[in-house]
Amino acid sequence: MLPQTQPYTGKSPIVGVTDTEFQRLVSRAIEAKGLSYSPYSHFPVGCSILSTDGSYTLGANVENASYGGAICAERTAIVKAVTSGHSKFKALAVSTNSNTCSSPCGICRQVIREFSSPNLSLPIIMLDKDGSEFVLMTIGQLLPLSFGPDDLATS
Amino acid sequence: MLPQTQPYTGKSPIVGVTDTEFQRLVSRAIEAKGLSYSPYSHFPVGCSILSTDGSYTLGANVENASYGGAICAERTAIVKAVTSGHSKFKALAVSTNSNTCSSPCGICRQVIREFSSPNLSLPIIMLDKDGSEFVLMTIGQLLPLSFGPDDLATS
Amino acid sequence: MLPQTQPYTGKSPIVGVTDTEFQRLVSRAIEAKGLSYSPYSHFPVGCSILSTDGSYTLGANVENASYGGAICAERTAIVKAVTSGHSKFKALAVSTNSNTCSSPCGICRQVIREFSSPNLSLPIIMLDKDGSEFVLMTIGQLLPLSFGPDDLATS
Amino acid sequence: MLPQTQPYTGKSPIVGVTDTEFQRLVSRAIEAKGLSYSPYSHFPVGCSILSTDGSYTLGANVENASYGGAICAERTAIVKAVTSGHSKFKALAVSTNSNTCSSPCGICRQVIREFSSPNLSLPIIMLDKDGSEFVLMTIGQLLPLSFGPDDLATS
Ligand SMILES: [Zn+2]
Ligand SMILES: [Zn+2]
Ligand SMILES: [Zn+2]
Ligand SMILES: [Zn+2]
Repeated sequence: MLPQTQPYTGKSPIVGVTDTEFQRLVSRAIEAKGLSYSPYSHFPVGCSILSTDGSYTLGANVENASYGGAICAERTAIVKAVTSGHSKFKALAVSTNSNTCSSPCGICRQVIREFSSPNLSLPIIMLDKDGSEFVLMTIGQLLPLSFGPDDLATS
Repeated sequence: MLPQTQPYTGKSPIVGVTDTEFQRLVSRAIEAKGLSYSPYSHFPVGCSILSTDGSYTLGANVENASYGGAICAERTAIVKAVTSGHSKFKALAVSTNSNTCSSPCGICRQVIREFSSPNLSLPIIMLDKDGSEFVLMTIGQLLPLSFGPDDLATS
Repeated sequence: MLPQTQPYTGKSPIVGVTDTEFQRLVSRAIEAKGLSYSPYSHFPVGCSILSTDGSYTLGANVENASYGGAICAERTAIVKAVTSGHSKFKALAVSTNSNTCSSPCGICRQVIREFSSPNLSLPIIMLDKDGSEFVLMTIGQLLPLSFGPDDLATS
Repeated sequence: MLPQTQPYTGKSPIVGVTDTEFQRLVSRAIEAKGLSYSPYSHFPVGCSILSTDGSYTLGANVENASYGGAICAERTAIVKAVTSGHSKFKALAVSTNSNTCSSPCGICRQVIREFSSPNLSLPIIMLDKDGSEFVLMTIGQLLPLSFGPDDLATS
C-alpha cells in the first residue's frame, strides 16, 4: 500500500523536522524551479535539501542537447550539497509544474540512496505544482531492495 | 512487506512463463556475465530478457574509464532488445557474482520501466551468483510511484 | 583544420574498408534510424558498426521519460557489439535526419574511445540525412587529449 | 597539432583573465579535490569555474555504487554554477592526482559545451597534480564538430 496524497497544512509530518523547516523545504523546492535550464523538455523541476547542519541546498534540472547529458534537479541538489560540505541530509523536497505529485526518477533515487545509509529513512516530500498537496515516502520505500556503498567493498 | 528469497526448483513462479522459459532466463542471465566488460569494478553482471515473441536477449555491463559512462547489464539488454525489434517483454533476469540476490540499480529500473507500460507488471528475477536462489518482484514494485511515457505529453 | 564534407560516391575513403563494406556501413546507419525509440526528441539517430570479424551491428537511440536515461544510437551499437563478441571495430557510421552531417555527442565519443585503444584511429563516418555527403574523422580527432583504459590502473 | 604542456608561472595565458583570477582558478581546482566523494575509483578530481560575474564555483566528483550514476567534478561545478545564477563562464580549471595533465571526459565536454555558445572559446585549464604544469585548450578544440542548443530547435 503506497502512502496517500496529503494536503499541505504547514504542519511537518516528519519527526525531527520542525514546521518552519518543513515550510522552507516546500517553498524552496517550488522557488528552485526558477533555476531550471530545461529548453528541451520545457519541464522545470525544483528540489530543496535540508542538511543536518541546518543548511538548505537548492537544485534544478540542467538539460543538454544530448538528452543523456541531462542532470535532474534532485541530483543537482545532491552534488551541490555533498561538495559544499553538507552531505548528511534530514529531508528532500521536489516540485514540478505537474498537477499531480512529482516523484524522483530512478537515476535520482539511486544517487539519493548513496547518501542515505544505513537505514534509508530519508524522507522525500513529493509536491504538486504549488505545494498544496504532497506524498511523503522514504528513499528506502522509493527504491526497495537497493544497493549502495555498504554493499560494495570500498576499501 | 518485500517478497522473500525463494529457492530455485526449476518451476516457473511466473504466470505466462513456462518452466523451460524460466530455466532459460536463469541460465542465460548467469551465462551473460561472461560477456561483461568490467575492468574497473571487477564486478560482472549478466541479464537476460524474454520477449513476447519468444526471443531471448542477453546483456552485460560495459564500463568506462569515465565511471559515469558505464552502462549496466540490464540497460544493455534493454537497448539491444528494443533496437532488434523485441520491445515487448515477458520477464527479465539478472545475476551477479554476489552471494546475495542482485537487484537492478535505479537507473536501470527507470529504463526498464519505460518499456513496461501500462501496468508495470513485468517480472524481474533477481538471482544469486549461481541461480540457486532468487527474489521475484515486478518493475512496479521496484520503482513505486514512477513516471514514464504515459505521464509526459509525447505528441 | 577540420576535415571537410565529402560527397558520397560509393568509393571507400578508409584504408582497410572495402567499397562494399563502406556502402553497407552507410546504408545500415540510415536504415538503423528506423529502430529508434525517440518519442521525446522526435529525432531518430541510426548507427552501424563494422567489426574486424566482418559483422555489422546496428544501433539507434533509446530515449527515456527521464531525459538523462536516454542512450544514444552510438552507445547502443557499442554495447550491442561488445556484448555479442564483436568488440574490435573497423569503422562506425552515424546518421540523423538533419540536413547537415551528424556527429556523436561527447558521451558517445567517450564510450567509443574505450574500445579504440591504443591508437584511436577508428574512423567515424558522419553522414547527412540520406547519405549523400559525409565527414570522416578518427575518434582521436573527435576526442583529443582523451583518457581511456590505458590511463587507469585496471589490474 | 595539440597545444603543449606549459609550466605554471602565475601569469595568466588567457585574454580577459587576470593573473590573480588565473591563480585562484588553479588553487581552487586543486583545493576542490578535497570535496570529492570517490570511494570506488579512489581518484579525486577537482574543478573550479570563474563566471563572468566574478564568482568562483567549486566542484568535485561524486561517485555512486552504480558506476553509471557517477557525476564528474566538471559537471558538478557546471550544474552548481548554472543553478546558482552564474551561468556565463570565463574559464574552467580541472585537477586530479595524476602526474600528467588531466582532461575532462567526453560527457563533461558535452555538458560544458552546452554553456559555451556561440563561439565555443571557453578556456579549459588542464592541470597536473599540484598545478606546476598545465595544458590550455578551448572547449571547441576539446569537442570539435560538436552540437549544442543552437543546433536543435528549442522553441
Ligand atoms: Zn531524476
Ligand atoms: Zn543499473
Ligand atoms: Zn551520444
Ligand atoms: Zn567527466
